[in-house]
Amino acid sequence: MAPCRARALLAYQLPLLRAAALKKGSRGQWAAKSFAHSARLASGRRQSVGGFTVNQDRLMNDLHRTCKWGTGKRWGSLDTETGMSRLSLSDSDKKARDWFVETTMALGCSVTIDEMGNVFAIRPGRNVGPPTCVGSHLDTQPSGGRYDGILGVLAGVEMLRILNERDARTHFPVGVVNWTNEEGARFPISMVSSGVWAGEVPVETAHGLREVRGGTVTMRSELERIGYLGSVPASHTSMPMAAHFELHIEQGPILENHKQKIGIVTGVQAYRWYTVQLTGRDAHTGTTPFDARADAMLAACRMIACSHDLAAKHSALASTGILTLTPGSVNTIPGQVKFSLDIRATSDATLETLEAELKAEFSRLASKDVTKGLDVSVTWQTDTISPAVDFHPSCIETVRASALSVTGDTSLFREMVSGAGHDSVYTSRHCPTSMIFVPCRNGVSHNPEEFAKAEDCATGADVLMQSVLRFDHLRSEEEV
Amino acid sequence: MAPCRARALLAYQLPLLRAAALKKGSRGQWAAKSFAHSARLASGRRQSVGGFTVNQDRLMNDLHRTCKWGTGKRWGSLDTETGMSRLSLSDSDKKARDWFVETTMALGCSVTIDEMGNVFAIRPGRNVGPPTCVGSHLDTQPSGGRYDGILGVLAGVEMLRILNERDARTHFPVGVVNWTNEEGARFPISMVSSGVWAGEVPVETAHGLREVRGGTVTMRSELERIGYLGSVPASHTSMPMAAHFELHIEQGPILENHKQKIGIVTGVQAYRWYTVQLTGRDAHTGTTPFDARADAMLAACRMIACSHDLAAKHSALASTGILTLTPGSVNTIPGQVKFSLDIRATSDATLETLEAELKAEFSRLASKDVTKGLDVSVTWQTDTISPAVDFHPSCIETVRASALSVTGDTSLFREMVSGAGHDSVYTSRHCPTSMIFVPCRNGVSHNPEEFAKAEDCATGADVLMQSVLRFDHLRSEEEV
Ligand SMILES: [Zn+2]
Ligand SMILES: [Zn+2]
Repeated sequence: MAPCRARALLAYQLPLLRAAALKKGSRGQWAAKSFAHSARLASGRRQSVGGFTVNQDRLMNDLHRTCKWGTGKRWGSLDTETGMSRLSLSDSDKKARDWFVETTMALGCSVTIDEMGNVFAIRPGRNVGPPTCVGSHLDTQPSGGRYDGILGVLAGVEMLRILNERDARTHFPVGVVNWTNEEGARFPISMVSSGVWAGEVPVETAHGLREVRGGTVTMRSELERIGYLGSVPASHTSMPMAAHFELHIEQGPILENHKQKIGIVTGVQAYRWYTVQLTGRDAHTGTTPFDARADAMLAACRMIACSHDLAAKHSALASTGILTLTPGSVNTIPGQVKFSLDIRATSDATLETLEAELKAEFSRLASKDVTKGLDVSVTWQTDTISPAVDFHPSCIETVRASALSVTGDTSLFREMVSGAGHDSVYTSRHCPTSMIFVPCRNGVSHNPEEFAKAEDCATGADVLMQSVLRFDHLRSEEEV
Repeated sequence: MAPCRARALLAYQLPLLRAAALKKGSRGQWAAKSFAHSARLASGRRQSVGGFTVNQDRLMNDLHRTCKWGTGKRWGSLDTETGMSRLSLSDSDKKARDWFVETTMALGCSVTIDEMGNVFAIRPGRNVGPPTCVGSHLDTQPSGGRYDGILGVLAGVEMLRILNERDARTHFPVGVVNWTNEEGARFPISMVSSGVWAGEVPVETAHGLREVRGGTVTMRSELERIGYLGSVPASHTSMPMAAHFELHIEQGPILENHKQKIGIVTGVQAYRWYTVQLTGRDAHTGTTPFDARADAMLAACRMIACSHDLAAKHSALASTGILTLTPGSVNTIPGQVKFSLDIRATSDATLETLEAELKAEFSRLASKDVTKGLDVSVTWQTDTISPAVDFHPSCIETVRASALSVTGDTSLFREMVSGAGHDSVYTSRHCPTSMIFVPCRNGVSHNPEEFAKAEDCATGADVLMQSVLRFDHLRSEEEV
């Protein structure tokens, strides 16, 4: 069976890759073909893709209704004005999953659950072949909101409803995926289940992940407990997809600040995480003149300020979210300081340059030439290297065509690079992928007050559905 | 009784104050008389003060022997190469106190214990009157050393032994004081018992202090438990002193760096402690461009670096020993940062100026003009204001004369200002006071590896004893 599937996959993927130029390089090297707005469905009625729009009220009703499972902290007086606390594989996550399975089956989908609890709801097309999917996640941060992940899955369900209502038949199957434990909030690897699907995280590692904060359960034991430990391997070969589109709130302020409605996400920033450790010498704040100090705290402050300045020079980002020091007394100069450094840029090359400059500059700042006292020693530990991701030009083009079709105004959308990781990072390694962003209030996310306007959610869902339909049409043309 | 005592006190203090100019202003304004090296004791044999030196071996044997009570962390292979952990009013402190009481009584002293457990061992003089005292503390930090405080008390005991051996009679009584809980490490007010003696800390406050880190005992209950809750009020009126001299390790690197043996301490730096709180906005490190950030961590770093630069400009000190942030995740920009700021200068006026400049500059650094993003809000809380202390010119002069007599070389001592607080700060409010510093290795203190050479300890003890004798002689001249 597996070899046949793999062959079927190749049969449709090759032309797509051809269209997109064979060499995958840095963004801009792609030579993608552009898509007509006149793409038509495979259905007998030959409806124009541009006419497909979601039912905003139903979408939002579904979204808020399913947020009764795992409701979090209240921040406003309306029923819908609460955050979410739906940790992956919890009882509330099970209820949301059960709803997803029942609803999509009732809409005529076949549902597959793999060994990571990823749920694939597939609506048949006119032809057989891997589905064109939309996917995101139903789990949230412990103190999260109602939109991150949830909007992407619920917009997929709404797409299925619309396709059914309009009796639309796609050339190939389309699907909706709920990826398990995207947040990494309960089991401490983010995007772990799309990572297993992509072959980047061993399934044993994922299954063995223990609940954070000293819990004793594992991902596997919780999958089993809530009845979502499927028998199908979590793998891009067992469950291939023709494409993966993900609708998500931006989690940043760019769209809102530019009064725009849609972000066409062309890729994901590269990022690297480091722990920088400084060793100076504990000393009394009152009795130790500046020229006799090895002040690890002062050196750390100069480095953090410097990381900001160097990152700005390269149009990159630098941030420190954690800093610890010892001994931690008002009148003792800290001898030890450890801080996290998170640097990000759209290209790996920029990040490489920035890292080299930071290492040189931090050494200088720690030396007695700058401290005018004693040397402070610096060590760097690299914790994470996440290369830049370039999404697929065909997918980016279908999103662009759909954004134009839905908004009718090029000033209302923009290309952007995702600053955060998503399941789409892993899917992009094995199938054409891109994402669609919608604005969220103040760019706030991972917070109960996370909020996106209903009309913006619906606009995003329109673009998502039309992207799937345009991609489906593209596949049919290339199959000819 | 009390009125008589007070009158006796005035009788000897007034001439001293007259000699030192009546107005106590900034350092340098004093018009102190200088002291002849030829001061003689009141004893029948009329021995020269310059001939009085301690027995170094006995001093160090006493010191190390009493360190068997509360021995701390080992850092070297010799018996004496450990730190100390003798928290105030602990069982080990009780044993050290018992030794002090027994030893000084055996040396002919009368011992008074006040309601704060301060122990005054007084050796009679030819005339009655308040004693000329040396004092320091037998308690240590939990991870402290063998010299801070202990040396000062033990040098006092050695002084008593020498006076007895040489059958010396002073004009007035001399005494040795062990002050309770100087470190503030167990009961969280430093120098609390000399503070009560000085009338600056209410005895009820001191008695009610609870052991740090959630302990349930109080100072009073522990004083009672170990038998050191005396009935004499802890007060400069009940237990007046003619003068207070304190020998102490420098706790800084200045003497060592200048290869000098004695610091003539002319006063104590002014210092102020603040908590600075910054409020920005938590945001995702990947999705939030610099111009949309209110990065409390970056602002804090710029402020801490700035505090150093401004302090350097004023020949002052600035240090941050504590910094906490929330939420504390690698990929979240901290929205809240709180840090301690400790600033010090030799004059109150300099500190006043520095504070004003820091407040203006921090406001600027938090404003969007500098952040190039959003404003960060800044609030200042003043936790401690400790004004500069000027020691008494008569005491400073006796120490100088003694340092010259003992070392015979003006290049081996220097005037300096103490960077740390000591019981002498409180005694200086009610009796002529000064201090004597000796070098300690690398300026390290409050650390098991705190170390002072035996010969340096003995030199300091020589200067201490001679200062007491010279001061005693001065009193006799003024009584004439
Ligand atoms: Zn998400
Ligand atoms: Zn001390």
